[in-house]
Parts: sequence; structure tokens; C-alpha cells
Amino acid sequence: MDFADIFKTTVTRLMESNTLPICDWLPWEFLCPKVQERGDLCTFTVLRTVMKTNKALNTFYNPCEWCDIIIESLPKTQEMSEVSTENGIINIRLAQKIQTPLQPIDPAFAMQPIGFISSCFSEKFGTPRQSNKNTGFYSKYSRGEITLLNHVNADSLDGLEEFSHIWLIFVFHKSTHSKLKSKVKPPRLNGQKKGIFATRTPHRYNPIGLSLCKIMKIDGKKIMVSGIDLIDETPILDIKPYHPADCLNEFSMPGYIKNPIYIYDVEFHDYAIERIRIIKEKYPLKFYTAEEDWIEIIREVLSQDPSTVHTKLKHQDQGLYAFKIDFLYVVYVRHCEKSSHLVVNVIHHFEAEIHELRTEAWLSDMKDTLISIGVLKSI
Amino acid sequence: MDFADIFKTTVTRLMESNTLPICDWLPWEFLCPKVQERGDLCTFTVLRTVMKTNKALNTFYNPCEWCDIIIESLPKTQEMSEVSTENGIINIRLAQKIQTPLQPIDPAFAMQPIGFISSCFSEKFGTPRQSNKNTGFYSKYSRGEITLLNHVNADSLDGLEEFSHIWLIFVFHKSTHSKLKSKVKPPRLNGQKKGIFATRTPHRYNPIGLSLCKIMKIDGKKIMVSGIDLIDETPILDIKPYHPADCLNEFSMPGYIKNPIYIYDVEFHDYAIERIRIIKEKYPLKFYTAEEDWIEIIREVLSQDPSTVHTKLKHQDQGLYAFKIDFLYVVYVRHCEKSSHLVVNVIHHFEAEIHELRTEAWLSDMKDTLISIGVLKSI
Repeated sequence: MDFADIFKTTVTRLMESNTLPICDWLPWEFLCPKVQERGDLCTFTVLRTVMKTNKALNTFYNPCEWCDIIIESLPKTQEMSEVSTENGIINIRLAQKIQTPLQPIDPAFAMQPIGFISSCFSEKFGTPRQSNKNTGFYSKYSRGEITLLNHVNADSLDGLEEFSHIWLIFVFHKSTHSKLKSKVKPPRLNGQKKGIFATRTPHRYNPIGLSLCKIMKIDGKKIMVSGIDLIDETPILDIKPYHPADCLNEFSMPGYIKNPIYIYDVEFHDYAIERIRIIKEKYPLKFYTAEEDWIEIIREVLSQDPSTVHTKLKHQDQGLYAFKIDFLYVVYVRHCEKSSHLVVNVIHHFEAEIHELRTEAWLSDMKDTLISIGVLKSI
Repeated sequence: MDFADIFKTTVTRLMESNTLPICDWLPWEFLCPKVQERGDLCTFTVLRTVMKTNKALNTFYNPCEWCDIIIESLPKTQEMSEVSTENGIINIRLAQKIQTPLQPIDPAFAMQPIGFISSCFSEKFGTPRQSNKNTGFYSKYSRGEITLLNHVNADSLDGLEEFSHIWLIFVFHKSTHSKLKSKVKPPRLNGQKKGIFATRTPHRYNPIGLSLCKIMKIDGKKIMVSGIDLIDETPILDIKPYHPADCLNEFSMPGYIKNPIYIYDVEFHDYAIERIRIIKEKYPLKFYTAEEDWIEIIREVLSQDPSTVHTKLKHQDQGLYAFKIDFLYVVYVRHCEKSSHLVVNVIHHFEAEIHELRTEAWLSDMKDTLISIGVLKSI
């Protein structure tokens, strides 16, 4: 016999007969999590639900009164050896242990994007982590453009131009792991695990991200932003202005949060600089026009080592890597010992046979080519 | 004739025949917003979508190549007077103007609560607005308890105890306005309107709230918090630790954000203090045990005038009001001219005929009673 079911049936009947006031917005599923079953004791916390008012009845009930109505209506069976109430909580002691613990069905909330961001970062690899000057790294040159969708009125942005920064609440749309782990390895902890709610990992129960960025310009339904860590096409769920209540004077955190992630020197080989000049003449970038900006954003991304913990542990040695920024594929050598990155080549998206790009074979060919033209020795 | 449909049919057929690589997570609806129709020009931005890789095919396509495949496959009709491509964008000029603008159907993301908060505030009226010491008001004595649901592992909280503060991302579950307005009246602006994205109003396209609170204690799947502005039973979608990247050294905002909301003196009539003592002997509160704490939380709520802009404008004169905190109904006199609140009575939820509580008739009776026992003169 399932006591949760008996309880549910009874309360539903009482609700239908208007004997019990339940707020109309409150579905049955909201009540379920409050049913606790421990051993042979079944506890129904009525207290929190009866405080709601039923708009139709426009009455309040005393929770104790409510408990009495429920208990009186429960079918009397031998399995219920003891029934008591206390401060709006019904305790039912059963003659035998409960076999099947209740699995509450929680309601889901449907969230619709208000817009999408077009970002200079189109892949996870090379997208910086949220940071600002306080943490030693800030991606000043990162660029993005949020466009509100048709159903969102441009008026909703009225007054936002008076703020310098906004919070973006967004969907981690590229985080599609089939099985959620409750712990992850934060980048600054060299393999040690922490609970996901103690981190900002994209692997969350709800794939919701929170990110701060700077407003550069607002134009109709478009917001140009900088300082972003969002991948191209990220669905935006909400925009909120940053204000003084968000900035705490005193707060504490574990020591590892202060460990720098800004550790790499970035150098450009003359060949890479020459390549940037050639590309600039022929092809456009989406977010950058000045040659200096192309170089600055590459420098920013590489100064915060884009390698994952996994990559770092797997490839301890130096090697050839590539990441994508805007329409550019940037090829660089990672010197672990010197803590430096050397940019050796830059390829525009329109320029190459893209379908081979950045596979191991491609990187291997790239290496041979760079060696043959004297850019690389052997690595 | 509907060009979006022709385009859709063509691209779908190409996708099905594996001629076009579309990332498997990317539903058709994601492509739609990029179809722009202006006058007789129909523009399909292919550029942003073809940069994705199809895991099954494991290939990249050059967007220009992709455009060529699509154009070649489009049925040739008289309506298409001109077709061209440029940097991955297909421009189709039609012989006649487009009559029906495309309405993109955006996908919704289903978010499930990870838990619910049990709060000392059970109603909108009397629940403070998010704030902290920087803004002159901080509800230090507010109390809440977040309980993670069954499907959320307690391990997810591992390491969170090392942080002092957390962000709560939650659902404004009591914000159920039928029609969304794109502008609202912020409390500090005396009736002037601002776009919803320039405010933190609960009336949003997605009912998502962002709130900072202090961790008091973590115990298994429960987090005791203070400094909250959430109503009882609020569904929590995510918890993220507060860290230095959230605190900006330099940011700007409109001047009105600095206007104080902390303006009211709070005094307690001896009768109210006596009532608190009597209640304390007989009934429990859920979040408060010490008498001083009962007084402090009442003081905090009333010091930040809980009246809405609407109430303030409607009832310029002084009057008798009540709000609920934990299990207490607090009755106070609002003296507009003196900018002060005087607490005159306190009633425990278990103590009274609750169904009449705080209706106009109840407040009127309360007034008469308080006058008859000498607590109030006439107001």
C-alpha cells in the first residue's frame, strides 16, 4: 500500500469538494516534495501549503484545522498505527516500513530566448572564462552583438544605455552531456573535484549561465557588448542591469579562486604578422577592423591559456594548436616550460579547405609546411 | 508564394540527403530568425549556421560552397528575379513584395527547479527588494532555507561552504500577469517608466530572478541563507558562488539608482512589544527564536517602506496597514509626514480567525479595537 497515494487521493477529493483551500496556481506536484518518508514514518507537511489563500474561496484556514480535516477523511486502515499532528505537520506511523520512496514530479518552466548573441568566439576552445580586472584577466577586446527576437519589444531596452554593464542570463546550449555529474574539476584546481554549485561550470542541472559584460552601444534591438565569454549563437534568456547591490564590500571564497589563470606570454612570429596583413587586405572579419585589434584579441585569448585541464594533463609537452576567433583560425605553438605561446600562422575561414581544418592530420601537415618555410624548426 | 517555405523545404531536403551538414543539436527553428525579408528582398544568412560541424559527417563546409548548393537546388520560378551570394549570405530578389513577414518559432528551454526556498516572507507585500550595504539597505535578519529536490545530489554542494555568498537564479512564480508590458515604473522613479531590461522587475519575458544572499549554514541538502528577497516556495533553478569577477571596480548607472529606499523610522508601541512577549510564550516562529530577532526583522522590513508606488500614490495620508513575516501578522501605522512607521499590534497565524485577516473590514475592526484599548487615538 502506498501512503502517498492514499494521502493524494484524500486531499484531491477534499480539494474538489472545496473543503480544502489550495491556491489555484499551486499544482499537486508542488505538494509532493513535502511528503517525507523515513522508515515507517510518513510525514506530510501541511503547514506550508495551507498558508496559501484560495482566491475563489477567499478564506484562510488554520493549518491545524486543515490537518484535522485531512486526518478525519483518511481511510482508517490497520496499516496506520498512529496519527498525530503538530504545528501543521501530519505524522502517520505505519505498521510496516514503506517500500517505495516517493519520487516527486516537479514542474518544468519553459523559458524562451529573448534573443541570441553573435560572438567573436564560435567554439568552446578559445572562449575565455568570465573574469574581470579583479581576477587578473579581462577580455577587453572580445566582441559580441545581442539581437532581440521579433516577439521582444525594442522599448524593453529603454534606459539601459544609462548603465555601463549588464548581466546576461543565458543557456549553455553547447553543454549537452548525457549524464550529469554532481562534481566537476575547476580549472584552477589541477584535477581536484568540487560540487557543481560551488563552481560556474556549464555542466549544471539547468544549463543556465550568468555572465557580466560591458555595453558598447545600443541600437534599436541590438546591444553591442565587450568582455564576453559567450559562444556564438548562445540563446539569451534575460538581461539585467548591473547595480551597486551586486558589488559586495565583504565576501569570502576559497583560496584557489585567487589563483591566476593569466600565465602565458604571447608572441607573434613575423610570418603570422605578415599573414594577418595579407588576410586583412583580402577578407573582412565580422567584429574587428583595425589590425591592432586582430592582434589584441589573439593575445588576450592566448594569454589566458585556452587549454582545458584535460588537455593540459594529456599533452604535457609543447605542441601545435589552433583556435578560432571571428573568421580567423589562429595556429600557435604552446611552450609549456617557457609558459609562452607563439603564434605561427593565421588562416581566414574563406581562404582554405575548411573541412580538414584542425584535425590531427591538418595540424601535422601545417607543421610540415611551417618547417619547410623556416617558420618552425622541429617541435 | 512564401519564400521562407521554399527555402525551408529545399534546405530540409538537402539536409536529409546529407548534402548539407547541420549540427545535430541545431533545430530548424534556430535557422529561421536569420531569414530577413525587407520589401521584395529575401535574405538568408547561411554564414552563421554552416560554421557548425556535423558530428556524423565530421566535415566543415565553406559557407560560399553551401550557398551554391542551396541556390542550385532552389526551384527556379519567375518570382525570383535575382539571386546572389556574398560572404555566405544568400540574397534573393523577388518579383513582388513579400506579403507575410516570417514569424520565427523559437524553441523553449525547459528548466526544472533544483529546489525550493522556504522563506520568512510569504507574500509580495513586505518582501524587501534586493539590496546591500552599498545601497543603504540590507535585510540582515531575513531568513530562508533552500532544500534541494530528490533528483539533485547533495554532492553538488561540495565546496560551497568555502564561499560566503551565492547567487540564486530563480523563478518569479508569483508574477503571473497575463500581458507583458515592455516598460515598468521602478520604485525609485516616482511613476516614470523604464524598459524592463533596464530594471530588475519581476515582470519579464522570462520570469527569471537573480538574487544575492549570504550562506549561514549548509547541512546535507539544505542551505540556510540570510539577506534574501525571495518569497516562500520560490522555485530555485540554479545556485552559483559569488566570486571576485562579479564585483566591478568601475561601473556606471543612472543617478536614480542611488536614491535611498531606506527612509522610514520604525517605532514599537508598548502594546506591540507586550503582544510579541505573549505570543513568544505560546507559539513558535519558523525562522526566529530570540525576541530581539522578531523585532529586528520587523524593523528591517518597515524601515524600507514596503508600500508599492501604486499604494504610495493612492494613499497619501496616514493609515493602518499590515504585513506578514514568518507566522506573524504585523499591524502598523504609516505616518507619511513624519516618515515613520509605528508598530501597534502583532498577531500570530495560529491565534486568530485568519480568514478575515487584513481585509479592509478587518483593518477597520482592528482600528476600533486599538482605539478602544487606548493604543491608538484616531488616525
